[in-house]
Amino acid sequence: MTTIRDIAKKLNLSVSTVSKGLNGASDVSDETRRLVLDTALKMGYASRQARTAEPTKICVFIENMGYEQIEQFGYDIIVGFKLAAAAKQWDVSIVPMALNQENSIQYEEYMHANHYSAGFLLGFVLHDDFLRQLEKTTVPTVLLDNVIYNKNVACLGVDNQQGIFRAVRHLAELGHTSIAMLNGEPQSRVSSERLNGFRLGMEHFGLPIREELIGHGDYNADCAEKFVGRFVDAGATAIVCASDMIAHSVLRELYRMNLRAPDDISVVGFDDLPIAAYATPPLTTVRQDRLAIGRNACLLMEQIMQGNCINRLLLIPELVVRESTGKPKNAAPHN
Amino acid sequence: MTTIRDIAKKLNLSVSTVSKGLNGASDVSDETRRLVLDTALKMGYASRQARTAEPTKICVFIENMGYEQIEQFGYDIIVGFKLAAAAKQWDVSIVPMALNQENSIQYEEYMHANHYSAGFLLGFVLHDDFLRQLEKTTVPTVLLDNVIYNKNVACLGVDNQQGIFRAVRHLAELGHTSIAMLNGEPQSRVSSERLNGFRLGMEHFGLPIREELIGHGDYNADCAEKFVGRFVDAGATAIVCASDMIAHSVLRELYRMNLRAPDDISVVGFDDLPIAAYATPPLTTVRQDRLAIGRNACLLMEQIMQGNCINRLLLIPELVVRESTGKPKNAAPHN
Repeated sequence: MTTIRDIAKKLNLSVSTVSKGLNGASDVSDETRRLVLDTALKMGYASRQARTAEPTKICVFIENMGYEQIEQFGYDIIVGFKLAAAAKQWDVSIVPMALNQENSIQYEEYMHANHYSAGFLLGFVLHDDFLRQLEKTTVPTVLLDNVIYNKNVACLGVDNQQGIFRAVRHLAELGHTSIAMLNGEPQSRVSSERLNGFRLGMEHFGLPIREELIGHGDYNADCAEKFVGRFVDAGATAIVCASDMIAHSVLRELYRMNLRAPDDISVVGFDDLPIAAYATPPLTTVRQDRLAIGRNACLLMEQIMQGNCINRLLLIPELVVRESTGKPKNAAPHN
Repeated sequence: MTTIRDIAKKLNLSVSTVSKGLNGASDVSDETRRLVLDTALKMGYASRQARTAEPTKICVFIENMGYEQIEQFGYDIIVGFKLAAAAKQWDVSIVPMALNQENSIQYEEYMHANHYSAGFLLGFVLHDDFLRQLEKTTVPTVLLDNVIYNKNVACLGVDNQQGIFRAVRHLAELGHTSIAMLNGEPQSRVSSERLNGFRLGMEHFGLPIREELIGHGDYNADCAEKFVGRFVDAGATAIVCASDMIAHSVLRELYRMNLRAPDDISVVGFDDLPIAAYATPPLTTVRQDRLAIGRNACLLMEQIMQGNCINRLLLIPELVVRESTGKPKNAAPHN
């Protein structure tokens, strides 16, 4: 069986030049390309893909995100992606590896060594080294909830700023003026976009932004204990949370404090995880359509593979009004 | 002429079952579908679509934007859109109407009355009335360089902030520290994004943002006369312009003042219109790939028509370095 190495030897060219000639890269001359293709034809070379009729292999990397249970954030994203990928007959592997933290593993090498044509990265907090890798990768890559400027990388997510803006609008329309925000980890891009949405919304509706009514926790752990009492003492009548998990612990903390949502305080979540509808009371939340995120990741991946250099695609999050929000009882006096 | 009703009667099925069978819906059995299709064939049924063979009609509205000459901004966008639309056999009409200013014309009514399935809007400065119309339209619509939150409207453009950021990075790397910006009309979204990119870039590279080095003109008229002298007097060694048309008048004004680009002052444009390469000296500029904008408008339109509610799609602008930028001669002393 003729290999690229055989052709290179025969023509006295480097393996990489032969590879570029076979792949139609623009940085070899037309003459060299023709020579390589003619020789490959004469020597009976068939590309690996042609030989084995292997389907396109796609790798989905997941970090910091549950996806195996239906109630976890990543589950529907993966379902949406897999359904769309199946229609294209792509072969999808899910790798829950903390690629990010493993300095020994290089993305580009990993993808080539495993014959992946493209990658979809979810849940990554981008550390500097990995950020630099993505800024120059040649592997078609789709990235959730982050932004990288590289024509081979397309970035995807809901418009976080608009999502929180809608939550604030809903509360302002109900008559709330002392609105608190319990945000996620301050270093994540998503958190900073959601905080921007909070500030924009408060400004837009002429409401005061009080720094003592803004708290940073993280997306999963129990930050409610630390902040809910403080917010209530400072006169908040509503709390906008950066995730349903945070909102869930806020509801639990309110219960512990013998306060009721929405009678004493309104609570809004973000994500619309399955738990939102089953919370007590059912949670008003900003819905991320995760099936649509998965489907659009697949659409973007195909576009990037075809050379259509889309940088970013944003979906609109919708506010789902349930029972955890209502009119403020008696606005507590401000400090 | 055989109708669905005739087939339903013949087979003793409901009209909706026959319709589903003809359309390949998944909730009728294979057996029923085959029976319906066979009967339809025997009875000479042709669908309305096949009978009338009407193609999908698309309307492109253009306001404030030249598109008929190859050197105009809109030309390649329309070419890209039409090529992609032709592949889908869409019938595209170009309407250079100032729909916006005609209060008597309502978008929704106009589209329905003329049997348009979708619209692509270019060059619109959104006045309040038209903005409200787009916020609630049910017509699938693609909008260039604006943002509307409506699931039937998809918004498209290059990342203006990143484009100007790249221009500033280029100048900072050449050693410029006194960089001016000559922006477009202050009320347009594009201008405010470009100004943000300027501020972000200057901050990122630790350069002073001096308000006397920021000017607002408009995208076509001759604002150079007003600002170039001022910028030079204030010690600017480079001017970032919000369009190639502005950069072009800056070059002309420098020529009139007997100054040379890049020896005396570096100039960067935006758009990469055909005139950029033919300017004297050839203009360093931020390239908007207008064919890609047109193609992606078509991609977005199709997605919106299929119910995939994409809100925004951003492309990366690329810096094209030509001869109008160079190292600063002797940085003039700041005031």
